[in-house]
This record gives sequence, structure tokens and C-alpha cells, in this order.
Amino acid sequence: MTRIAVDAMGGDRGPEAVVDGALAARGDGLEPILFGSASLDAKGLELWPTTQVVAMREKPADAFREKADSSLVRAVKAVADGEADAVVSAGNTGAMLAAGLVLLRRVPGVRRPAIAVPIPARQGPSVLVDAGANADCRAEHLLQFATMGAVFAEEMLEIARPQVRLLSIGVEPEKGNQLTLEAHALLAASDLDFRGNAEGRDILEGAADVLVTDGFTGNVALKAVEGTIRTLLDSLREEITASSAGTVGGLLIRPAARRLRKRLDPDTYGGAYLLGLRGLVVIAHGNSSATAIANAIRLAARGVDHDVVGRLAARLPQRAQLV
Amino acid sequence: MTRIAVDAMGGDRGPEAVVDGALAARGDGLEPILFGSASLDAKGLELWPTTQVVAMREKPADAFREKADSSLVRAVKAVADGEADAVVSAGNTGAMLAAGLVLLRRVPGVRRPAIAVPIPARQGPSVLVDAGANADCRAEHLLQFATMGAVFAEEMLEIARPQVRLLSIGVEPEKGNQLTLEAHALLAASDLDFRGNAEGRDILEGAADVLVTDGFTGNVALKAVEGTIRTLLDSLREEITASSAGTVGGLLIRPAARRLRKRLDPDTYGGAYLLGLRGLVVIAHGNSSATAIANAIRLAARGVDHDVVGRLAARLPQRAQLV
Repeated sequence: MTRIAVDAMGGDRGPEAVVDGALAARGDGLEPILFGSASLDAKGLELWPTTQVVAMREKPADAFREKADSSLVRAVKAVADGEADAVVSAGNTGAMLAAGLVLLRRVPGVRRPAIAVPIPARQGPSVLVDAGANADCRAEHLLQFATMGAVFAEEMLEIARPQVRLLSIGVEPEKGNQLTLEAHALLAASDLDFRGNAEGRDILEGAADVLVTDGFTGNVALKAVEGTIRTLLDSLREEITASSAGTVGGLLIRPAARRLRKRLDPDTYGGAYLLGLRGLVVIAHGNSSATAIANAIRLAARGVDHDVVGRLAARLPQRAQLV
Repeated sequence: MTRIAVDAMGGDRGPEAVVDGALAARGDGLEPILFGSASLDAKGLELWPTTQVVAMREKPADAFREKADSSLVRAVKAVADGEADAVVSAGNTGAMLAAGLVLLRRVPGVRRPAIAVPIPARQGPSVLVDAGANADCRAEHLLQFATMGAVFAEEMLEIARPQVRLLSIGVEPEKGNQLTLEAHALLAASDLDFRGNAEGRDILEGAADVLVTDGFTGNVALKAVEGTIRTLLDSLREEITASSAGTVGGLLIRPAARRLRKRLDPDTYGGAYLLGLRGLVVIAHGNSSATAIANAIRLAARGVDHDVVGRLAARLPQRAQLV
């Protein structure tokens, strides 16, 4: 039985969406355990009562220090204590990272845990890593991110031999900054299937199975893609509804627009994955629906079943010798 | 009379589009001078014959060294020699940068020239700087980029007191990497109208008149926005034409889609501006149409008339003392 600790108080939509998502995910060999207020209607699921809540905008270090009995911290602790196999929260990403680092600790050989975000790219799923855990990186960190991303792509996205690219400012190997030039050399010398540099325009198009970058660039780029999708669709709606012919046309293309939105929906992949800790940590979007929470829980369970953490541990020390 | 040197051999569409664009831009007080093959039909414009052509993918340093009689290098040299007031090319950006640095040299006080790209953001035009000239930067460079961007926004985009933001990974001042944390402090202490950090999602939405960043992040982010627009519109077209109702709807929304594309068209602003050199350098998109070339030439002339270079020179040394 795979047990997934679920932070019922995380997310912008309130505990009910989380409980419903957990209920939907419960199934053959998968048991969600809720962490949240004792007054919560757990709808038959196991509930471990907690007394505190970490807010979305709270400073991560403070939240972790001052809220030991929060649903977020207790859910992470359940994995550390062996009560659960993985943890899912739609709450504060920084607090999850802080709690994960202290309570779960790093897999031996891992220098820096990283955030992996699966992207529904046009040419198929692709994983961006690091999407925001490490604002300042060295080249050997990027090599580790690539390795962790490759294990993730193999086990979670079912890609047999993932192709890896480095996010840079030109496809030529000599294009980049000091960090990417050094990382390029390390990646080219590794046994990963490294295909060279990719550019910002390749992120949504899908140039590689694993797109590796530092957490600053990755976070800026990911938000640029997400923000551009939102702004563009909003602007298109504005322009369409500005005329009556457009409004009729808008109704006729609605199913197409809905299919596209579904295709691009980040919730398909459950959110962001914190890789490199001794336990899988899944951070769902803040405004996750019950369906998104259910997907995140199922994907966490899949990560447990495929022993993503164990495989990372097995692959990383080997590589560390290369550096 | 403002004289603009135009590289007739630059760009993917061939010299005719450039010549037509130059012809369209010619007017009251604006005289384009073409640089290109002697066999070119200059359609009555002044043509300075050149014998070489810099290719789009050529290595910038090689191109500059080996092609002294290329249309690109000669057009830049015309500004250096006082034969023209500014230069426009739709050719190789790196070669323009190399030629500009050597032939035009920097404005006194400028440490690093930077590429400013006006973005047709939803809330109005916004300028991203540096969009790719400097892959590795220090905080004082970013302060200079912000100052140059503010002068650009004032003179070229007619924004009276431009608001400046720093591209980072969270709006809170403590969010960022080492570079942005230091740059944040310098910007906050400057006399610019600094409004704090912006995120990737703000680029197309338009959070600030001037969005400052290092050239690596700026280039990745700009290409992420451009690529996402293209991928999204392509995907939407695919989905729409997959059904007949969708196809009819697509025809009805075509005017709206066209308005949107026009609103987002980067050619509206003529392309990228190389700021910080003793002469204005405008790099039009590689696939610029005649209209785009004409816009670029008119904007270059506007930059000359508003003495953007002189104003940069006047503003920068003051600020250098702050650092």
C-alpha cells in the first residue's frame, strides 16, 4: 500500500477541493492521509489533526520554524518518519522546500535538490529543471539537475532514453554565460544523451525531454511562458468579443480553445516535483482543483512505485565522480 | 537632414525589401543611405557600393575581422565617420555589436552597451534591457542598463517618468539571485523611479516601462515570450481547423486575430536598439518586411532627433558616481 501524505490546508481553494481530490485518487494500493484541522470533513479518509496553517506568502524559514504543527510541516514529517511514502501540498513552495531540506534531508550524493516542472510542450511532455529552488548555481549542480531530470523523465514521463538540452541564448556551444559554458562541457562529457543548447523559444515548442537550467533562469522562463499564455488568451478574448461577428466566431471556436487549454493545462502533470530529497515531494499549483490534486497524488504514488528516489540515489554518486 | 545608414544586404528577405523600406521611410528631413552590392536597384536612393556580405549565422568576431567591405561593417563605419547619424540593419546581431563596439566605441561612462527591445505589452509599450548583449553582468551594469532604458523610454516611447522594475523570481526584494539582490539595492538607491521586482509573467502583461535584467536572462525570457506566442497561435490554428464549425469560427475571428497580431507585432517598434555607443544602432528582425524596415529607419531618425546618444552621455556619468 502506497501512502501519500496530503496537506489538506494548502492551496487557494480551501480544504474541500483537497479532500475531494484525495478521495478521487484513493484506490487500488493508494491511500491518501490527510493533514489538517480536526474539524475538517475528511469524508472517510484518514485525518491526522494539526493546529496550524502556513500561509501562501509567509516567509519559508519563519513558517518552518514557527509552525511545527502546521499541516504542511506535519505532512512532510510523516514522510521523514516513515508514516507516508511521499507528500503532496498545494501550499507555500518555499516552506515545502525548507521543510523537505531539514526533515527529509538530501539523497546521498545530491548537492542541491531541484524543482522539476513537467511542461505540456507541443512535441510532447518535457521537464524543466531547476524551476526555482536554486537561484545561484555552479556547473556541477546543473549536471546533477540534468541527471535527476533524466531519471524523472524515465520513470514519471515514461521516456526511455531522455534527450537533454541546456537552456541558453543560442544553439551553438559557444553561446551562453560562464555558467552554461562550463555546464555544457560537463554535460557533453557525461553519459547523458546530451543534445546541446536550447533557447527560450523551445520551451513550449518542446526541444528536449529534459531542459536543464539554473533556478533563477528556469523560474523566470517558466513564468514567462505561463504569463504569455494567459495574456495572449485574455487579449484574444478581448479582441474577439469586440465585434458581433467575432463573438459568434468565438462561440464556434470554443471547443477548439477548450481542447487547447486542456492540452496546455499544467495540472495534467500534477505540479512541481522536488527532486533530490529522501522522499518525493510534490507541490501542486496554488489554485489546484480537486482533479489537479488527484493527479498530483496519483503521480506521487507513481513516483513511489517506480522508486524515483532510490534511482536518483543509485545514479548520482556515479556521476559525482565525473565532476 | 538626418542621414540613416541602411545595410541593404542584411535580413532574410533579400535587398529588395530593405530598399523598399528605405524608400518608404525617406521623407521630410530623413535621407536613408544604402550600403550594398553595386548591382542593386537602389530606386533613386543613394547607394554606397560594398563587395561583401555578412551571413546571419557567421561568427561575429570573424565576420567583423574578415569583412571590412561588407554592407554591415561599412554601414556602421559610416556613422563612425560622421557620414550618417545612425545605422539600421536586419542582419547578424552579434556582428553589429562587434562592429559597433570597435568602430563607434562606447559613450564615455558606459561600461557595457546593452540591447534594448521594446515590447508591445498589454498595458502599453515596455522596454526590456539587456536583451542579449552581455551574458555575464555585475550589478552596476544593471544600474546602467536601467538608466539607458529610462532614457530610451523617455525619448523613444514618449513616457515622461518611466517606471523601472528588475526582472527576478518574486516581487519581494529578498527574492532573486546574488546579481539581482545587489542590483536591487543599487536601483533602490538611484534616482530612477524604481518600483521593485517583476516576474517572467509580467513581461507581456507589462508591469513596468523599463524591465532591467542581465543579457542572458533577458535573451532567454524574450525568446520564451516570442516562442510561446508563436507556438500558442499555431496550436490554436491546428485545433480550430480540426472541425468544420471551428473552421467557420476561425474565419469569423480572423479580423480579431489580425488585430491582436498587429498589437503584438514586434516590428511596430523597429526591432532592437543597441544603447551606449557613440551612434544609434538599430537591429531590425531578420525577417523584416519593407514596413518593418521603414519603421526601424524612422525610429532611428527619431532617436537622432531626440539626441538619445547625447542624453545617455549626459545621464550616465552622474550615475557612475553612485556606484
